[in-house]
Amino acid sequence: MRNHTPNQHPFILNASFLRILHSSFLILHFSIFTIHFSFSQRLIDHVNPFIGTMNAGHTYPGASMPFGAVQLSPDTDTIPFSVNGKYTGEVYKYCAGYQYDDPTIVGFTHTHFSGTGHSDLGDILLMPGAGKVQLNPGTESQPDKGYRSRYAHSTEKAAPNYYSVYLEDPKVKAEMTTTTRVGVHRYTFDQAENAHLILDLIHGIYTYDGKNAWTFLRVENDTLITGYRQTNGWARTRTVYFAISFSQSISTYGFENNRPSGYNGFWGKFNQTKDFPEMAGEGIRGHIHFELKDNPVVMVKVAISPVSTEGAIENMRIEVPSWDFDSIKNQGQAAWENELSKVKIEASSPEEYTNFYTALYHCYLGTTIYMDNDSTYKGLDQNIHTAEGFTNYTTFSLWDTYRALHPLYTILQPKRNSDMINSMLAHYDQSVHKMLPVWSHYANDNWCMIGYHAVSVLADAMVKGLSGFDHIRAIKASVQTSNNEWFDGLKSYMSNSFYVAEDQSGNSVSKTLEFAYDDWTIAQMLALHPELSDGSEIDLKEYYLMRADSYTEVFDSTIGFMRPRLSNGTFKSPFDPLDTHGQGFIEGNAWNYSLYVPHNPKALISLMGGDKRFVEHLDSLFTMPLADKYIEHTEDIMRAGIIGNYVHGNEPSHHVPFLYNWTSQPWKTQAQTRAILPSQYKAAADGLGGNDDCGQMSAWMVFASLGFYPVAPGSTEYALTSPSIKSAELLLENGKTFTVKVSHQGPKNVYIQAVYLNGKPLHRLFITHADLVNGGTLEFHLGPRPNTRLGINQ
Amino acid sequence: MRNHTPNQHPFILNASFLRILHSSFLILHFSIFTIHFSFSQRLIDHVNPFIGTMNAGHTYPGASMPFGAVQLSPDTDTIPFSVNGKYTGEVYKYCAGYQYDDPTIVGFTHTHFSGTGHSDLGDILLMPGAGKVQLNPGTESQPDKGYRSRYAHSTEKAAPNYYSVYLEDPKVKAEMTTTTRVGVHRYTFDQAENAHLILDLIHGIYTYDGKNAWTFLRVENDTLITGYRQTNGWARTRTVYFAISFSQSISTYGFENNRPSGYNGFWGKFNQTKDFPEMAGEGIRGHIHFELKDNPVVMVKVAISPVSTEGAIENMRIEVPSWDFDSIKNQGQAAWENELSKVKIEASSPEEYTNFYTALYHCYLGTTIYMDNDSTYKGLDQNIHTAEGFTNYTTFSLWDTYRALHPLYTILQPKRNSDMINSMLAHYDQSVHKMLPVWSHYANDNWCMIGYHAVSVLADAMVKGLSGFDHIRAIKASVQTSNNEWFDGLKSYMSNSFYVAEDQSGNSVSKTLEFAYDDWTIAQMLALHPELSDGSEIDLKEYYLMRADSYTEVFDSTIGFMRPRLSNGTFKSPFDPLDTHGQGFIEGNAWNYSLYVPHNPKALISLMGGDKRFVEHLDSLFTMPLADKYIEHTEDIMRAGIIGNYVHGNEPSHHVPFLYNWTSQPWKTQAQTRAILPSQYKAAADGLGGNDDCGQMSAWMVFASLGFYPVAPGSTEYALTSPSIKSAELLLENGKTFTVKVSHQGPKNVYIQAVYLNGKPLHRLFITHADLVNGGTLEFHLGPRPNTRLGINQ
Repeated sequence: MRNHTPNQHPFILNASFLRILHSSFLILHFSIFTIHFSFSQRLIDHVNPFIGTMNAGHTYPGASMPFGAVQLSPDTDTIPFSVNGKYTGEVYKYCAGYQYDDPTIVGFTHTHFSGTGHSDLGDILLMPGAGKVQLNPGTESQPDKGYRSRYAHSTEKAAPNYYSVYLEDPKVKAEMTTTTRVGVHRYTFDQAENAHLILDLIHGIYTYDGKNAWTFLRVENDTLITGYRQTNGWARTRTVYFAISFSQSISTYGFENNRPSGYNGFWGKFNQTKDFPEMAGEGIRGHIHFELKDNPVVMVKVAISPVSTEGAIENMRIEVPSWDFDSIKNQGQAAWENELSKVKIEASSPEEYTNFYTALYHCYLGTTIYMDNDSTYKGLDQNIHTAEGFTNYTTFSLWDTYRALHPLYTILQPKRNSDMINSMLAHYDQSVHKMLPVWSHYANDNWCMIGYHAVSVLADAMVKGLSGFDHIRAIKASVQTSNNEWFDGLKSYMSNSFYVAEDQSGNSVSKTLEFAYDDWTIAQMLALHPELSDGSEIDLKEYYLMRADSYTEVFDSTIGFMRPRLSNGTFKSPFDPLDTHGQGFIEGNAWNYSLYVPHNPKALISLMGGDKRFVEHLDSLFTMPLADKYIEHTEDIMRAGIIGNYVHGNEPSHHVPFLYNWTSQPWKTQAQTRAILPSQYKAAADGLGGNDDCGQMSAWMVFASLGFYPVAPGSTEYALTSPSIKSAELLLENGKTFTVKVSHQGPKNVYIQAVYLNGKPLHRLFITHADLVNGGTLEFHLGPRPNTRLGINQ
Repeated sequence: MRNHTPNQHPFILNASFLRILHSSFLILHFSIFTIHFSFSQRLIDHVNPFIGTMNAGHTYPGASMPFGAVQLSPDTDTIPFSVNGKYTGEVYKYCAGYQYDDPTIVGFTHTHFSGTGHSDLGDILLMPGAGKVQLNPGTESQPDKGYRSRYAHSTEKAAPNYYSVYLEDPKVKAEMTTTTRVGVHRYTFDQAENAHLILDLIHGIYTYDGKNAWTFLRVENDTLITGYRQTNGWARTRTVYFAISFSQSISTYGFENNRPSGYNGFWGKFNQTKDFPEMAGEGIRGHIHFELKDNPVVMVKVAISPVSTEGAIENMRIEVPSWDFDSIKNQGQAAWENELSKVKIEASSPEEYTNFYTALYHCYLGTTIYMDNDSTYKGLDQNIHTAEGFTNYTTFSLWDTYRALHPLYTILQPKRNSDMINSMLAHYDQSVHKMLPVWSHYANDNWCMIGYHAVSVLADAMVKGLSGFDHIRAIKASVQTSNNEWFDGLKSYMSNSFYVAEDQSGNSVSKTLEFAYDDWTIAQMLALHPELSDGSEIDLKEYYLMRADSYTEVFDSTIGFMRPRLSNGTFKSPFDPLDTHGQGFIEGNAWNYSLYVPHNPKALISLMGGDKRFVEHLDSLFTMPLADKYIEHTEDIMRAGIIGNYVHGNEPSHHVPFLYNWTSQPWKTQAQTRAILPSQYKAAADGLGGNDDCGQMSAWMVFASLGFYPVAPGSTEYALTSPSIKSAELLLENGKTFTVKVSHQGPKNVYIQAVYLNGKPLHRLFITHADLVNGGTLEFHLGPRPNTRLGINQ
């Protein structure tokens, strides 16, 4: 017979259990929920890829793997930049190829940016057809005159790595899934007569006459087509190689070159439009027919490669050896489930789950893998390189993503973020400009936006202890990048301590402010490596800290705003601090941009006249009415993206709601972020107030929901705010878990009453990265009224 | 004191010497000459690269290695195909970039076809300038308005692997030499002010709007530029990568894109025209400046690659490690001397030496190496391939060169010819069309002209015992090539035994005749490999022999000419056997083309009514007057290329002068070839009567001069004619020597009196390839009147 020790007695245990229950009701609730959750509901089921697909969100609903090279998604239209030389004005609407309120689908293409405000891609359009072959896309108003089709949202399904829709005109159910480098289509034809697929290499996103530099294709055999599409545009010199495999044999096919070159030569002696297996030119469209005898299903694999058609074929062979669509879909969805489950939250409503996991989903679509399975990729120098010891990534929209997306990766995807840094360093090595990427875009820098914020990503990863990249190499690349005098105002900035307003390019204040912040991040890296001080009179770190103060040079204390400064030292007039255009700023007016000193809010507060005036500025920003003319001047976002005069739909103010944390009224950060979340992130197609910008907008949402935010990447500190979730577990790559617990969560309980880190009360409303990665628990107690004594004037 | 044995006694030796002298005067003469020759004169000094550079020869005077990938030569103009949509008519004049009577040089470019009748290339123009920078080429009539320069032929020097000229406008001596893949320039500036080089990537040969698909360049550092030029045109999809290295540091530079794409994007924020190190677009021109302080010489190395800029840099590193221009030149000239010295002739005049060695020189410019030093090259499928165990070549103008050039290579360059065949087989393997090359053109087939004459090259090499390629693979490729029904009339030919005249493409008779010959060559290969007979009812060899008789189907015995035949079996009317256009032929009228049965002259003679009528046809051909309107219709040659109605300036009749050998009057072959040689090959810029066609015209000259010709490649027989040289030694790769000796050579002694092979009299006017490669002596005795009993009715 076995003895029972007291604490083994079930009743004693039960009593203990009840005691815990009493003190930590929410922990129990959370535990029950997660148990329930992991057995009966998948996190991917919370993701709604349609969020942001209407208006300016510029997300796409199609299928992709986390960080996948293929983004297989329907394009509902692609308005060219200009028609007959006249700017259409609609080109930006189709940055992701899809607009939710469009009534027709043009076809399915394999590459899409997620949430960008400018665009490109949309490569290799496939569209099923039946009956008459039409080799033009038709128009929304006259879809019958082209190969596009009507569809109804009621037939549309979108989930991570799966998209399907019923195409009414050809009567085809279209389904899509992917692996990292392969898009897999399953078309089920309701009518077999003259069943075919359109392959359109003219189609693309952000097109104009001359977009295609060259396209090339070969029908290798009756189930395989290879080729490439070489474009210019946002990426000046970009080539996507592809291999397309069909589950049924091609019965007949034909290609036309709708924009023949000036010379056709001896190719003219062949009838190239029917069963002729090679075509090249700028404007290739074709039709591929199948005899659907007993099997109404045509499946297609489309592999892409940055290197060669051979690379694409090999990617297909490795990643999709079978024709088992459901298995491919399930594997991809399992990968998504794995990525999403690194943050397990409890929320208050299905919509909050949807918003959170869709945001996390969008974060993992932001950057994309850019190499073949054999680690080769095309570099900036247009040569083929091998990524030695890392995975090469592209799509770094760094002006956006240095703020919150890369910091989020540093927490949840440190290995990938380190590989992204290695990709940036490879970019630097290949750059004839000796620049880290500004906007890495498929073996190009498209130079979009301002600053050199890659240095912020490097610094943030370095100060937060990320392994897997060479610190010294990173610092040297950062120093060189920040000393390229030819770059976009840097010479002026370096000579004058600010970018003089009369220099060629505009946005002199925005550039000065962002250069200053970037320079501060370089100083943070140098601080970790004093061995790099070269013994010069001016220490390199001190030099960058000096540059980091340049924001003071463009502050006009007479009006209390940052303001363009002329080379003679005076400030530019006239000046309208409400206007975004022509005032020295970009995507933000002086009201917003004057707050852009993320690396030194204390000094900024002092510069702006002290705590009271600073808080008044912030309060006004969030509440003042903004005249329509100024809203019209705010780039690329909808009215919905603006709160008062605070612009959440663009990035420059993303840190602003957190600045109250440095004032006497930090609870206003809490109120603001809790207000911004439901205002700017809705579980609807038009749920995003502005471009998701490769996940930056979503990363803000994830951080704000969890209750902390990296105001100054390059610092190890996170500013705290009121979480919107009830609890969260962050499962870190180091095996540790960081838990956020919230008591008394509720729509009115937006104020932090107290906050505990590992059981100890916090008096400053900040935590550090070490607090996170060491694992532990951050416990918020919320209430409906601010605790005005907590964390003031820190 | 030393003993003298009798035959060591000088006088006894002398007596013996005199005896030899008596019996073989010419042998002695030859020996004396060659001794003199090898000590005091180089064979390369006989080469005059200006021959053929005026009018329709389409040769270039610049520097190249034997079979070199780089052909560095001045372009005097390049008229675009059309201006403002109107055909200029002048485009073909500049197939090689240079016309001798032009007064200005536009610049120096790195790739040129030798003697083609259509064109392309002219890549990477460099041109020195001093003073004002001009970024357009100017015009011949107004050279001062552009970067081109006046020059005088008196300052021009051209030799194998060396070209120089004094450019009057910038006052610069320009010198060029090469290695296989690198062009080396030496510019000596007489004035240092604002010394610069123009780099023009728009410039090219056979240009038109849209010729450049894309060009790209990077200034890697102050002595290195890399980039590529991607064009369409005769080659539909062609890219040349380059690396340009300078002996002095660039002081400043600038590039302009004269044909910007529709979208410049965020590159627009940079001033890309000055010291901006990267440019891409369709129309790049730039200027590169040097401060010529103490050194007026700027040297430039331009390496090219079919693979990558890295490949170009590596080619430069391996091939031209130094800046020693003279050493590079000397090495290249030594290589030329080595190639030319494989045929050592004695001729009657300096002009004959010049004509002969210039022809041999042109033969070795005909095909070109197309791979990097690491054996990689771009294939037809646009992927990078490695040539395993062979050197990859391109520039196979096979409709021209199967006739005499490749047979000449089989004798003098068997290893290279075998590698060319391996290149053709690799082309086949990469061909989605399952075709051996028709016209291999830098990873393209440009499909120029008719037939599938690669099979003739394969067969000729195979029957002549060339090693180094896989016979079975060659036969299979040939059989597949000749059974591609989609190819240019093949389906019609295969269904009807002839190409019916009403089918889409013209030239039905020419195609029928050439297909028939090609098919005969396939039968010759199959005859060597009876194991390939598959036991079918129709033996494969017999099948091809049947196809080889198709020429009989298009012979109209009522008029005695080959004539287009309709699908109902009747012949097409009206029909003009003198006209080249619209009559079913190409580059030859019925008078010439009716003689195109090289594989069975005996049967042809019978078909055409027997010996007497056949000889009458030949006699008339060479003597009949041809009305101007017919001459105007003869493609791409000058009046000088026509003798009577015989067209030597085009290829289809190149075997015709030798057909007398199958008649009762073989001496007329001798008279004709001796007449053709001085008529069609003159030591002058306008010395060639038609396009040299990658060396085919020159190979004819070499053969005819030596006294034998391969009438039907694929046969091991050579038809003999009267040599024009006094003697020749052919130093074969197998170490054997084949010697041609001629007694009583003289301008009137054009008839063979007797001919001896290794001392034995020949009764047939033919030798075999075995006779050649076994080494030996072919001795001709010539005289002023025909020996009408020698070799008749063979």
